[in-house]
Amino acid sequence: MRCEVVAVGTELLLGQIVDTNSSWIGEQLALAGIDSHFQTKVGDNRDRIASSLRQALERSDAVVVCGGLGPTQDDITRDVIAEVMGVELLHDEAIEARIRAMFGSRGRAMSANNLRQAQVPAGATTIPQMPGTAPGLVCPMPPGHAHEGKVIYAVPGVPAEMREMVAGTVVPDLQRRAGVTSVIASRTLRTWGQSESGLAEMLHDEIERLDREPGATIAFLASGIEGIKVRLTAKAATAAEAEEVIAAEEAVVRSIIGDIVFGVDDETMEHAVVSLLAEQGLTLAVAESVTGGLIGSRITNVPGASKVFRGGVVAYASDVKFSVLGVPEGPVVTEECARAMADGVRKVLGADVGLGVTGVAGPDAQEDLPPGTVFFGLAIGDRVESRPVRMPGDRERIRAFSTIGLLNWLRRRLLDLE
Amino acid sequence: MRCEVVAVGTELLLGQIVDTNSSWIGEQLALAGIDSHFQTKVGDNRDRIASSLRQALERSDAVVVCGGLGPTQDDITRDVIAEVMGVELLHDEAIEARIRAMFGSRGRAMSANNLRQAQVPAGATTIPQMPGTAPGLVCPMPPGHAHEGKVIYAVPGVPAEMREMVAGTVVPDLQRRAGVTSVIASRTLRTWGQSESGLAEMLHDEIERLDREPGATIAFLASGIEGIKVRLTAKAATAAEAEEVIAAEEAVVRSIIGDIVFGVDDETMEHAVVSLLAEQGLTLAVAESVTGGLIGSRITNVPGASKVFRGGVVAYASDVKFSVLGVPEGPVVTEECARAMADGVRKVLGADVGLGVTGVAGPDAQEDLPPGTVFFGLAIGDRVESRPVRMPGDRERIRAFSTIGLLNWLRRRLLDLE
Repeated sequence: MRCEVVAVGTELLLGQIVDTNSSWIGEQLALAGIDSHFQTKVGDNRDRIASSLRQALERSDAVVVCGGLGPTQDDITRDVIAEVMGVELLHDEAIEARIRAMFGSRGRAMSANNLRQAQVPAGATTIPQMPGTAPGLVCPMPPGHAHEGKVIYAVPGVPAEMREMVAGTVVPDLQRRAGVTSVIASRTLRTWGQSESGLAEMLHDEIERLDREPGATIAFLASGIEGIKVRLTAKAATAAEAEEVIAAEEAVVRSIIGDIVFGVDDETMEHAVVSLLAEQGLTLAVAESVTGGLIGSRITNVPGASKVFRGGVVAYASDVKFSVLGVPEGPVVTEECARAMADGVRKVLGADVGLGVTGVAGPDAQEDLPPGTVFFGLAIGDRVESRPVRMPGDRERIRAFSTIGLLNWLRRRLLDLE
Repeated sequence: MRCEVVAVGTELLLGQIVDTNSSWIGEQLALAGIDSHFQTKVGDNRDRIASSLRQALERSDAVVVCGGLGPTQDDITRDVIAEVMGVELLHDEAIEARIRAMFGSRGRAMSANNLRQAQVPAGATTIPQMPGTAPGLVCPMPPGHAHEGKVIYAVPGVPAEMREMVAGTVVPDLQRRAGVTSVIASRTLRTWGQSESGLAEMLHDEIERLDREPGATIAFLASGIEGIKVRLTAKAATAAEAEEVIAAEEAVVRSIIGDIVFGVDDETMEHAVVSLLAEQGLTLAVAESVTGGLIGSRITNVPGASKVFRGGVVAYASDVKFSVLGVPEGPVVTEECARAMADGVRKVLGADVGLGVTGVAGPDAQEDLPPGTVFFGLAIGDRVESRPVRMPGDRERIRAFSTIGLLNWLRRRLLDLE
């Protein structure tokens, strides 16, 4: 089963928006074991969208087209799919009712344009997940069509809406079409702190066992500063059974690599840390030098972070470390400084837990230490600790890796893993 | 003149890397007045890269192919281009010498694999800009070829190398092929604080004048939280003359919209602020609530920020604003609080200039104020001021717009524009 992605929108070609949707869909397809050989970006132009869809159907078994489902005259994906299928657009009363209800619940009047969104190509079905006013579509090529048996999925360009539909309908439907008549369930365990080859080695025996015996399958996906994802997939006769297989396999995998798993599915490292702090009734303060505010900004990206996050001190200048955080005067790219920052910031801000990070982001060396030299500090209760780390890459990556690395240390400490 | 972009790399299809290169190239093409109707991502597969290039040549006059120029066996872009051109790969002694010299100057031994990078399709020329070991290529289709007269440009996937080559060679060469025999120069003025239609209105008379008289041309490009870019382009017989026309036009445009221009070409808002502070010998401290560290993290993205940036306080909890920054107790989503934060943080951190920002990022209201309600504070010398702003969008955009909006206010104040 091969599936291409076509992203629609002139703003994507002009570079006004970076097309992160295709990347995300590509990752989901890879994790689901579906090949994807091409991704195309095309503008809001009828002929060019049609030619992209026709070519994708030529080369592949399925196409996910993303964007162009809004209510304006520019949004022509629906129309073009109908043209490619060789069918009419029909008005869908049930979708109109849903759109009306959505506007009603927000106390807004629906414009006539929005009725365009209730148009569905004949023979297509709408995707049950519908978080916005744009319905997603499953459009099988009709009997007698040159590409009969192939399918176009249309999802909105709004990332949250697209994700819900791709995860909830598109991927399961693709897996079903790939010949899997049973129900498929999957779960992604997000890990930090091991290389892909290290993970493969740890899970080697389990993967061999799964090759021999029926059950789940395991796949890896390296995701840069988001760590490495381990995807578990299981087929069974019913959803409940598939979930049971996944749950059992998750238990096995966690018994082997459990302490490096920081989140499940879409859960980020900062979500994990905020949740753990909230569960344990602890508050957090951070003292940042090399990261310059990045840790605070990631934590406050989590809605509800205010329950646990008191704030931080960005102590970029050395003497701010001394005067505001009470760090003893002396060299500042040291373990001692990281510890004193962590301990100082929790006292100054009245938090239960303090984090500190100092280091060299480059391009220049500092205190004779090369870029990538970083020290973490962590203060909880009576324990005030530090550790040296080496971060790879340029200024941006050193700062990003330092952020997630330190949050991961806190996560492990809160779980009593270290 | 139509030009497509083909990005090569299996990691792009798998979503391990987001393809920001194509977006950047698309923007450069748009700014240079070159149409681009399709962008394609394809994996490291010989047949599929070849079919993507052939199709792009079919539909367009030129192709920029990005990636696959490295030294490993996976890097096959050179080979595929030679195949599409129907020519042999030749060894380029001059490129080999440059690669050897590059390794020598870094004190590293060159592996035999790197010699692959000195292979050039017959009839192609190398791009003079060569910041890494991968040479870029200009590959005109040879006489008798079905697409004679069309051209493939190959540039590396490393963003910094790609950008230097696209800006230095690819775009000027495309403009030359577009029929412009004279030299072309261009400059981008980056603006903040006006809508695209507002800018068009302000520059309406000047654009009309340029339509009637020879000189530069003006184009706009909306770039989200990076503001709106105004691109000036001029043709002349020599580079010096073109630069002169650009400089004269820049002066005219700045006399009309000058105070909303924050940077030129790749200069970001944080670069502008750091430069202005350095010129004026001022140091900065920031007090962040709603942005949670984002302002500090952007400023410290600028290499050399340590000369002017002392640090900040992320005062997320209300009582941290009171205890650490000396904000008077009371409601915290107010102009008074923003002022007190700005004034407090420069005192606590010993800086000349203080910034403060407080507001509601959502999803929930706070102090009965809806998400998007934000107050800026700014303290320089005797002046301690505040202003209310309304930010659009979700949590992420409210925080991003607040960051650049406040930095822009500081920029304007440092320039005595307000």
